[in-house]
Amino acid sequence: MLTLYYAKGTAALPVHIALEEAGAEYDLRLLDFGNKDQLHSDYLAINPKGRVPALVTPEGVLTETPALLAYIGQVFGAAKLIPETPFGFAKAQEFNLYLAATVHVAHAHKHRGARWSDDAASHEAMRAKVASNMTECAALIETHYLQGPWVMGEQYTVCDPYLFLVARWLKGDGVDDSAFPKILAHRARMEARPAVQAVLKHHD
Amino acid sequence: MLTLYYAKGTAALPVHIALEEAGAEYDLRLLDFGNKDQLHSDYLAINPKGRVPALVTPEGVLTETPALLAYIGQVFGAAKLIPETPFGFAKAQEFNLYLAATVHVAHAHKHRGARWSDDAASHEAMRAKVASNMTECAALIETHYLQGPWVMGEQYTVCDPYLFLVARWLKGDGVDDSAFPKILAHRARMEARPAVQAVLKHHD
Repeated sequence: MLTLYYAKGTAALPVHIALEEAGAEYDLRLLDFGNKDQLHSDYLAINPKGRVPALVTPEGVLTETPALLAYIGQVFGAAKLIPETPFGFAKAQEFNLYLAATVHVAHAHKHRGARWSDDAASHEAMRAKVASNMTECAALIETHYLQGPWVMGEQYTVCDPYLFLVARWLKGDGVDDSAFPKILAHRARMEARPAVQAVLKHHD
Repeated sequence: MLTLYYAKGTAALPVHIALEEAGAEYDLRLLDFGNKDQLHSDYLAINPKGRVPALVTPEGVLTETPALLAYIGQVFGAAKLIPETPFGFAKAQEFNLYLAATVHVAHAHKHRGARWSDDAASHEAMRAKVASNMTECAALIETHYLQGPWVMGEQYTVCDPYLFLVARWLKGDGVDDSAFPKILAHRARMEARPAVQAVLKHHD
């Protein structure tokens, strides 16, 4: 059995979708960030980083969204959620890494500026650049990475729920998402999937 | 044949070390960031993100350090640079993801503040928090992740060259690295490896 620790509106969403798509059996544990549950000693014993998602497996705890997505793809191989060849797998990892280390970081400068500076004026300066940074990221994805209909082409993979999370951020981050028709069509395709609909009930 | 595009003092270092440890045949292409080589149209055709490392393989280009490290580990399986089980592989990925999406990002706020704000005063405010953020990251690695003698324990993996890169940053980032004896001992162990010595000649 697997247990997913998650909070609403976080990077736990794609991991949750991947578990559902894989047909995994899993329990859910909801953390309330408003209550700072993620910094409670009980949770820090599970994930000392005080972040979500964390996945408790029979062998131990795993964290970091792209690592969890690859793990779910490997363990639930019959669901074919990751490309089979080392090169294909690396391309999927490359995409998910870009979302984790560049796109999510760009997005986080809207509300999480306190991670990188103690000066309130600088937080405002960071917020002011979020729309242009996220527009650049969306353009790169639209032009170079989203093959269609799914991120990796014909195969639905763990890249797709992760892009879905990012697509849901764009408008709120000040991006004119009508400039990115492939990303919008991908989002609509995701919203039509029963697994996504089932998972969103826990997050919205 | 593989071709690694790199620049000195960048995240290309661990990928270069992994190629050398794997016994791979590879060519090197050095980019001069002072000359903005990474933004030249020839290079953007290889990596539209304008970053390093990029690895040209017979099947296409791959980017993002943790994706490249996992790829090298999988393709050169005889070198045993990645754990064999899905859980072990995920733990290695979790470590490398933490370095890529949290530690490298914290470090980048020293010199790359312009990525996240156009306001010069805010860059100074970001620089002021680098030492405390990097100290927190080092403490987490020292306490929770570096098993010893190598990151994953007895097995030398692609996590080790990546930690080596981070360890080389600490003092320059204002971290009192004497507080982290396991990281210092790991760094010394890395510097004693012939593959690391051979690679450093290209980076220092």
